Amino acid sequence: MTSPGRPTLGVGLIGYAFMGAAHSHAWRTAPRFFDLALEPRLAVLAGRNPAAVTEAAGRLGWAGTETDWRRVIERDDVDLVDVCTPGDTHAEIAIAALEAGKHVLCEKPLANSVAEAEAMADAAAKAAARGVRSMVGFTYRRVPAIGLARQLVAEGRLGQIRHVRAQYLQDWIADPAAPMSWRLEKDKAGSGALGDIGAHIVDLTQYITGQALRGVSAMLETFVEERPLPASTGKLGGVGGAETGRVTVDDAAVFLGRFSGGALGTFEATRFALGRKNAIRIEVNGSAGSLAFDFEDMNVLHFFDGSDPAETAGFRRIVVTEPGHPYVGAWWPAGHGLGYEHGFTHQVVDLVTAIAKDEDPAPSFADGLQIQRVLDAVERSAAANSAFTEIQES
Amino acid sequence: MTSPGRPTLGVGLIGYAFMGAAHSHAWRTAPRFFDLALEPRLAVLAGRNPAAVTEAAGRLGWAGTETDWRRVIERDDVDLVDVCTPGDTHAEIAIAALEAGKHVLCEKPLANSVAEAEAMADAAAKAAARGVRSMVGFTYRRVPAIGLARQLVAEGRLGQIRHVRAQYLQDWIADPAAPMSWRLEKDKAGSGALGDIGAHIVDLTQYITGQALRGVSAMLETFVEERPLPASTGKLGGVGGAETGRVTVDDAAVFLGRFSGGALGTFEATRFALGRKNAIRIEVNGSAGSLAFDFEDMNVLHFFDGSDPAETAGFRRIVVTEPGHPYVGAWWPAGHGLGYEHGFTHQVVDLVTAIAKDEDPAPSFADGLQIQRVLDAVERSAAANSAFTEIQES
Amino acid sequence: MTSPGRPTLGVGLIGYAFMGAAHSHAWRTAPRFFDLALEPRLAVLAGRNPAAVTEAAGRLGWAGTETDWRRVIERDDVDLVDVCTPGDTHAEIAIAALEAGKHVLCEKPLANSVAEAEAMADAAAKAAARGVRSMVGFTYRRVPAIGLARQLVAEGRLGQIRHVRAQYLQDWIADPAAPMSWRLEKDKAGSGALGDIGAHIVDLTQYITGQALRGVSAMLETFVEERPLPASTGKLGGVGGAETGRVTVDDAAVFLGRFSGGALGTFEATRFALGRKNAIRIEVNGSAGSLAFDFEDMNVLHFFDGSDPAETAGFRRIVVTEPGHPYVGAWWPAGHGLGYEHGFTHQVVDLVTAIAKDEDPAPSFADGLQIQRVLDAVERSAAANSAFTEIQES
Amino acid sequence: MTSPGRPTLGVGLIGYAFMGAAHSHAWRTAPRFFDLALEPRLAVLAGRNPAAVTEAAGRLGWAGTETDWRRVIERDDVDLVDVCTPGDTHAEIAIAALEAGKHVLCEKPLANSVAEAEAMADAAAKAAARGVRSMVGFTYRRVPAIGLARQLVAEGRLGQIRHVRAQYLQDWIADPAAPMSWRLEKDKAGSGALGDIGAHIVDLTQYITGQALRGVSAMLETFVEERPLPASTGKLGGVGGAETGRVTVDDAAVFLGRFSGGALGTFEATRFALGRKNAIRIEVNGSAGSLAFDFEDMNVLHFFDGSDPAETAGFRRIVVTEPGHPYVGAWWPAGHGLGYEHGFTHQVVDLVTAIAKDEDPAPSFADGLQIQRVLDAVERSAAANSAFTEIQES
Repeated sequence: MTSPGRPTLGVGLIGYAFMGAAHSHAWRTAPRFFDLALEPRLAVLAGRNPAAVTEAAGRLGWAGTETDWRRVIERDDVDLVDVCTPGDTHAEIAIAALEAGKHVLCEKPLANSVAEAEAMADAAAKAAARGVRSMVGFTYRRVPAIGLARQLVAEGRLGQIRHVRAQYLQDWIADPAAPMSWRLEKDKAGSGALGDIGAHIVDLTQYITGQALRGVSAMLETFVEERPLPASTGKLGGVGGAETGRVTVDDAAVFLGRFSGGALGTFEATRFALGRKNAIRIEVNGSAGSLAFDFEDMNVLHFFDGSDPAETAGFRRIVVTEPGHPYVGAWWPAGHGLGYEHGFTHQVVDLVTAIAKDEDPAPSFADGLQIQRVLDAVERSAAANSAFTEIQES
Repeated sequence: MTSPGRPTLGVGLIGYAFMGAAHSHAWRTAPRFFDLALEPRLAVLAGRNPAAVTEAAGRLGWAGTETDWRRVIERDDVDLVDVCTPGDTHAEIAIAALEAGKHVLCEKPLANSVAEAEAMADAAAKAAARGVRSMVGFTYRRVPAIGLARQLVAEGRLGQIRHVRAQYLQDWIADPAAPMSWRLEKDKAGSGALGDIGAHIVDLTQYITGQALRGVSAMLETFVEERPLPASTGKLGGVGGAETGRVTVDDAAVFLGRFSGGALGTFEATRFALGRKNAIRIEVNGSAGSLAFDFEDMNVLHFFDGSDPAETAGFRRIVVTEPGHPYVGAWWPAGHGLGYEHGFTHQVVDLVTAIAKDEDPAPSFADGLQIQRVLDAVERSAAANSAFTEIQES
Repeated sequence: MTSPGRPTLGVGLIGYAFMGAAHSHAWRTAPRFFDLALEPRLAVLAGRNPAAVTEAAGRLGWAGTETDWRRVIERDDVDLVDVCTPGDTHAEIAIAALEAGKHVLCEKPLANSVAEAEAMADAAAKAAARGVRSMVGFTYRRVPAIGLARQLVAEGRLGQIRHVRAQYLQDWIADPAAPMSWRLEKDKAGSGALGDIGAHIVDLTQYITGQALRGVSAMLETFVEERPLPASTGKLGGVGGAETGRVTVDDAAVFLGRFSGGALGTFEATRFALGRKNAIRIEVNGSAGSLAFDFEDMNVLHFFDGSDPAETAGFRRIVVTEPGHPYVGAWWPAGHGLGYEHGFTHQVVDLVTAIAKDEDPAPSFADGLQIQRVLDAVERSAAANSAFTEIQES
Repeated sequence: MTSPGRPTLGVGLIGYAFMGAAHSHAWRTAPRFFDLALEPRLAVLAGRNPAAVTEAAGRLGWAGTETDWRRVIERDDVDLVDVCTPGDTHAEIAIAALEAGKHVLCEKPLANSVAEAEAMADAAAKAAARGVRSMVGFTYRRVPAIGLARQLVAEGRLGQIRHVRAQYLQDWIADPAAPMSWRLEKDKAGSGALGDIGAHIVDLTQYITGQALRGVSAMLETFVEERPLPASTGKLGGVGGAETGRVTVDDAAVFLGRFSGGALGTFEATRFALGRKNAIRIEVNGSAGSLAFDFEDMNVLHFFDGSDPAETAGFRRIVVTEPGHPYVGAWWPAGHGLGYEHGFTHQVVDLVTAIAKDEDPAPSFADGLQIQRVLDAVERSAAANSAFTEIQES
């Protein structure tokens, strides 16, 4: 909410592709619907191509531009650095920003390796001691239905959790003719479906259940090992040409897991589930109730209350648009659903609120590190004949 | 897309409640995602209460304020007047604005009576001759799934249309203790569920089928005739006190209809469908295909293609988030759904595009008048023992 | 349950097409799963074609055959006559059987006209005074989900009923090339979609709500007035030839209605809803709860309990296969769904139980007459410019 | 179809609990709807308790009874032995019957161990050489939607299969107070959820894809290790008393698998998924199409055809009740769904047809053995820290 007397929070955003556009929208929109203690100011957008970054800044609403991310960190009008670059650059940028006393919001996954993530968590802990805050961008937590799911578990409505099943299903490279992209190269992307989308369901299931994964048994698969190099580019890789390149990441990751509270988990992340575009499906079964969610119907949470009499018990299709639902009161009347980008706006709200209250926001870099360790254990298990592999605890 | 050389379109918005907030969001957001030929400038917000309008302008992003709507029309920095006031004021404001040479976007329903709507359509026609544009805000047309539905009918994929069934189901006054509101008073609101939500399904079914309603047979009902006057206020009426007031509009409207192309229609608009929050449900059956839509799952259109072999035929659950779907390419990758307010953003896009191209946008005031005549026929039929009542053609 | 000491009930079935097969299955199966006080004995099957009836009797499990229904009524080994012939013969057969002291089960609709139905109800009342029972075959009442729906209303879980919406959607003659059949001739079938399928939703909504329709406003439509005469025959009419015949019944019936308790109803029965095969869809909204049912998912009832807190309220998808649900305990464990024909088996159970207890089963011929009067009012309203037409009370 | 000249097939059924009732219904019903080359004759029902077996024989329609299964095998009027006893007796009975020249239908899982299953497959192979047929009862194969799924894969409509995900979710012992039963004792049941319901999804996924599992990585879990001993008995265990017993089988089994054609599989079988009664959920993703099935909506198959244009592509909800669908033509018109027990009737049809044609029916005892080996590999993997465990090929 723009107001003359309100202190501002100068934001510098690094990266302006898909995630950059989503974050820009969130920074612009959050103060229009939520009563924030700090007014975000879209100070500067950074990118290497001068013409492109200037165009993007105008389109996305940023006051200035930089072509070197180091300049962003040096600017006095920047209080917070928002990192939306590919994963191989997260560690360097985020650590430099934290050391320079800037709050940091870093896209997920936190890093491309456990070692990088450890360094980042370390830097975040030191910065927090000086009042500098950091957060990793697992935005799906901010979908109201997910928030409600966590609440129900926390209130004991599910009892003891026994089963967690989670799938993140996409199909954008199901066609072998879909061309190469940086997301299919291990040195840039770290991993394939595992880190890109599998990380989300690891985070979501831990967030909802309040339990941490303790170990996994996994398989990884690359169905299409060679793809055409892109002849032209598009949002997700454009059209392929005659030359080919080698896919060095997983196309799909499947794993079993055990949670700290005893629940059994099954996980599947794939870009080869033809017909599923962005289906994040999560089910939790407890001794007292059950939950089911599918991002393809994101404003709905299904809840089975085991205390209902058998004759009138059934999964309740809760349309999560009531004023009492998480985040919803700031938006529209009941029944008027939210969309994908609202999660980013809610993320800004939670981050700004934590900074204003001088509290550490969640998920922290330590949380991001823990998820990195899960991904690492998945890779190690897959390499070790699927043997159960424990996840290092902090 | 903010760009130095782009011409601007100064906007004056009158009203800042639910609809005002939605329109403000749309004016701010449209240029960030769509490449508009004119750059909207949020010049002035008008409302009677000086303190409230100042607060709202800051929150919603408007440069200035007025407490008299007539001042908005006089301002040189205003090219377009956006009317978000209750229905009983639409005619006066819109006609004055058009006569002053301002383009007008007017919320639906166009007016509270056919006579007012006729005057407005008349003013719009005269203004159009001078290059001044006008549009009525049936935003649900801009939901991508609805756009796709219209496309499929227009392409002949449904063949000859035989059945249209449409319901707009809400439940916000199902409880007899829900207090009075201006929406329950005939002199302010014109009608109840009929004009507020029934108007939408009249517009949507005509828009999708490309056919006009020719006549109706109707019943109206007021289930709760006396309600507590509000002791405090909230978004939808707050909490009731000890005194009561008289509900003078319909709680529910049901009607049968015949379309110009021969289809049979069934319509139901109610605020008493307990458990349905904003369920706009539309089905169309043709000789070659069928469609089904429910706003509670707004990113989905169900399509039955009668040319599929019987063994593999079935309603296709189309997730309307592909780049080739209406409006969708400007937003996110496939599978990342949109929300309620995107319809308003798309409305701004279509309106600004028409103005820039010097074309008449749709739906026009003439379209709004036609819908008003349908609502009027519904009321007359209900008053005449449900006898079939023809709708006046222009 | 076959048992040496149990008294038997000799059954004579007249007709062996679709309904005859369903009834035969029910007579055979009911005693295998339910503990009946009388053991049904499949005594005789009647049909005009000697070869065909002999073949059918063997296939369907009947001990003997007759080619004249009058002979069935005269037989001493027949205690009950089951009438599965076209509607134009119901009155003559049923009345003769009742007068001969045979219990009667008559397929719906009871008759082709109010006058016939009155005569039948009259005969049934007289027979009942002598302990001879009669019942009309609205089998969908015996779907467990429908039984549960009625229970919930009767227990007050829905409060005061405000809205009833009911559709019976089929598509078997949506293709204009589908050939003529006796079901499309008024003198044989009485009416078209109205009596064939519309009668079911009239019965079901009255049964569930416990309220009677008091008046209707209606439209009837015949979309395809001329059809090829059948060149060959099949279950639903076979393939058409070069010659054509005239359709003399409605293809679709839509009507509004008012129930005795004040609820508003909307009804639609059609054979032109492409893609819907046998979709009986019923929704009821009350002041305390709501229900939704679709026969395409017949083992499920959706129930919204208005007393749930808003944050965890939602339509419950009740899988109606619990031991405590109507009829279910006699079948399989929870989750093992029933099919279409189970309704017929339940009908036999209820009928035999009533006969054994010397009680009048429901729905009675008087109930069938009342439904006939609703259908008649629909036709009269449609002929009178859709004017509201009251339904004669008994 | 009962017919004087048709040869008969004398059936002896051993066991009369849940499965016995389902099989009896199937033997009685199959000839009423399908044109079988042999007429099944329900010759004898066997069970140890003389009074109970007599009562059951009367109720279920069997001509005679035996209290020793060996007597059934000796009877001349028995051509086929149907084995519906607990798994620990399958091998002895089935082998004896085959050696006596009786055809055998044996309930699943084939046996409680690989060794037993090997002996049975061996006996079946020898018997087949003498024209004696055998089959194992994976009835869910006979659900029409499953048959259609297999057809679509076989026709290449799915292309190369990449993902298979299968869950069999029940909740009947989710409550720790649910009492002990023989199904929870390893020596009687062999395993818990794994063999009882996991076996079904192993069979179904192999049947649909036409691929065999080559190896698995697994976890087993027993959530409730001690339960009350039953104080009284009911269909699924009755009510527990004060004394307790030890659960010696798994409550849940989760495993990953690799199929012979390269597909990745995820499997979950549990009796602790609160709110899911008998949810068999199977999804298959291929390079050209995808399928989804849920037994809670058993008459529906969801099919995504990758060759549809993106704008009109979507999972098709195929209501599998068309005459051209597997088994459906013998039943009701389109849209009139089947129930759980129809699978058993179809099983009888396929078995009798194979016997009459002197062909080996499927699934054979060799198929049953292969599934037993999968279950065995699951148990060995779970005992070996989830290490990938290959499945022995025949």
